[in-house]
Amino acid sequence: MNEQARRDEAALGEAIAAIRPLDAEAMAAALDRQDQLTKPRGSLGRLELLGVQLAGIQRRALPAVERPLVVVAAGDHGITEEGVSAYPSEVTGQMLANFLSGGAAINVLAAAAGAGLLVLDAGSRAALNEQPGLRVRRVRAGTRNFAREPAMTRGEALAAIAFGLQVASEEAAAGADLLALGEMGIGNTTAASALVAALTGRPPEEVTGRGTGIDDNAWANKCRVICAALDLHRPGPDDGLDALASVGGFEIAALAGLVIGGARAGIPVLLDGFICGAAALVADRIAPGVRPYLIAGHRSVEPGHRIMLDALALEPLLTLDLRLGEGSGAALAIPLVRAAARVLCEMATFESASVSRGEA
Amino acid sequence: MNEQARRDEAALGEAIAAIRPLDAEAMAAALDRQDQLTKPRGSLGRLELLGVQLAGIQRRALPAVERPLVVVAAGDHGITEEGVSAYPSEVTGQMLANFLSGGAAINVLAAAAGAGLLVLDAGSRAALNEQPGLRVRRVRAGTRNFAREPAMTRGEALAAIAFGLQVASEEAAAGADLLALGEMGIGNTTAASALVAALTGRPPEEVTGRGTGIDDNAWANKCRVICAALDLHRPGPDDGLDALASVGGFEIAALAGLVIGGARAGIPVLLDGFICGAAALVADRIAPGVRPYLIAGHRSVEPGHRIMLDALALEPLLTLDLRLGEGSGAALAIPLVRAAARVLCEMATFESASVSRGEA
Repeated sequence: MNEQARRDEAALGEAIAAIRPLDAEAMAAALDRQDQLTKPRGSLGRLELLGVQLAGIQRRALPAVERPLVVVAAGDHGITEEGVSAYPSEVTGQMLANFLSGGAAINVLAAAAGAGLLVLDAGSRAALNEQPGLRVRRVRAGTRNFAREPAMTRGEALAAIAFGLQVASEEAAAGADLLALGEMGIGNTTAASALVAALTGRPPEEVTGRGTGIDDNAWANKCRVICAALDLHRPGPDDGLDALASVGGFEIAALAGLVIGGARAGIPVLLDGFICGAAALVADRIAPGVRPYLIAGHRSVEPGHRIMLDALALEPLLTLDLRLGEGSGAALAIPLVRAAARVLCEMATFESASVSRGEA
Repeated sequence: MNEQARRDEAALGEAIAAIRPLDAEAMAAALDRQDQLTKPRGSLGRLELLGVQLAGIQRRALPAVERPLVVVAAGDHGITEEGVSAYPSEVTGQMLANFLSGGAAINVLAAAAGAGLLVLDAGSRAALNEQPGLRVRRVRAGTRNFAREPAMTRGEALAAIAFGLQVASEEAAAGADLLALGEMGIGNTTAASALVAALTGRPPEEVTGRGTGIDDNAWANKCRVICAALDLHRPGPDDGLDALASVGGFEIAALAGLVIGGARAGIPVLLDGFICGAAALVADRIAPGVRPYLIAGHRSVEPGHRIMLDALALEPLLTLDLRLGEGSGAALAIPLVRAAARVLCEMATFESASVSRGEA
């Protein structure tokens, strides 16, 4: 490894060591307050649990989500040479341009949720320069074809992780109090499926779906490509970094960095669908302390998503048959997370409102 | 029937006759546009279908939800004499006061959703006067105990429906473009369970839950009370008005009026949980044309809710283990409905954004 890779590895180690468990005292205080509020005990269901989680993450009984930020990481994939996607690689760059001009679903959904939007180019084949709303650390113009060789070197994977770590740290310092993650990268459901198969030990056919839309033949080919790649690279189920370098992607690495960086900064990390889940699984293997900081925005139609969420012990907030990515499911879940915090802070107590308590 | 009842019945008949089918042309245009937008076809799942439904309801290809209004209807229930609730009837009035002072869950959730809030007293035992945020048409101070006699006369049921119709009409005229419904009424899960059993023919044990929190004995008693009442009144499965008067409630009648009035005014009606669902089922039996105007906000933990939603062919947007009522699940779903409209209106098309289409 060169000197930069050593620096990136040291930054990662430092971040992992700095992740704290959730604040048990704040959680106990939030839980106690939930039972004082003018509603039958537990009647707001998962919203109450979410409020308590936010209290633990933010280390205060009265949490707040006032400056949510959607971060969409992009990268291209050499594996597209194997015909695994319904779209050509050029679409990654075209969609980056669409994000910057405001016309994509995630622009509309982030705005609707009152969230900011930041796009990271961690390794696309596009040639966009850094500009408002876009940060560029293009480690390489797309990964290598992992059907033939590792997608990234270890140093490249560390560089993309470091990019995510740095962005999380800077945005938290600038006031972001929730990171909602999304991605763009033609071919990345193949990388994510390979990662999930590698890290959970499940057979590729169980965790591989149709991405943004491929037919039966293309699906069978996608499964074959993943099987062969796992036979070639044999990543271990506990080595997140090895799996990431072997069959992952630059945007997935940056997202893993954002997960770890968000946890280190003490802010909740709201995941989108299948690709973000794969990044979270990688982050979890590298830094198990991240798990309590995670919130699953939705369950996508990708069959591997349920397996991945189970592996992370996450229950998604939404199930709307989404399969877009970009952070769409995370952005749609932001109002729920914000509402969970507001309920805890703004509702009256039985005492303050003079409401009789039930017998239950 | 007296003259007022005849007027209320005439108003209902007029409203039913004025409900139009959704606008097929607007829906076709919206569907076509969904396929032009820069996302894989169908990739926003249920959000896309919701956008098309909104287009059909609002009779324009580009729908908008800009002034959502949460309407919470309240009433008391004579059936509480039978020990069916964990809370005393006084709580209905105490919670009305809590709504008006802003301390309840629905205040926080309506505000978080950017929605207005209007409370209707259709028949509580409280003695609050009309004031900003509260409209009062207290048909009676609570229903009669339907274990012994019909909950309401036919004229009383019509009066409460007429109240809902009138409010829907006035609020639509004032600019509301979505009605999100909620309720408050100690004892009303018993009334709603009885209505669902009556209108779907399912046995009371299948549709009866624990409301805001009762134990096994109280649950068995609640089932017995409902069984006995249905034996006593024998409402027909197709006569919504008869079932409503026999075992319903004033808030449920007002909600049925809001559903019919919303459909007549051409605005979407977003349902909360079990009680609102029962009101929608009553409205559907009285005025089958309402169904395409309905959106189910969430699936509550009440076991009868799934049965009721199936009977209405509705798929809920959220499943968050809520069992509060007040409109909480409807308010939480407002951002999703709004996002569905915004996606359709604000996203770029493949052509305008110069993004390549996939092969799929």
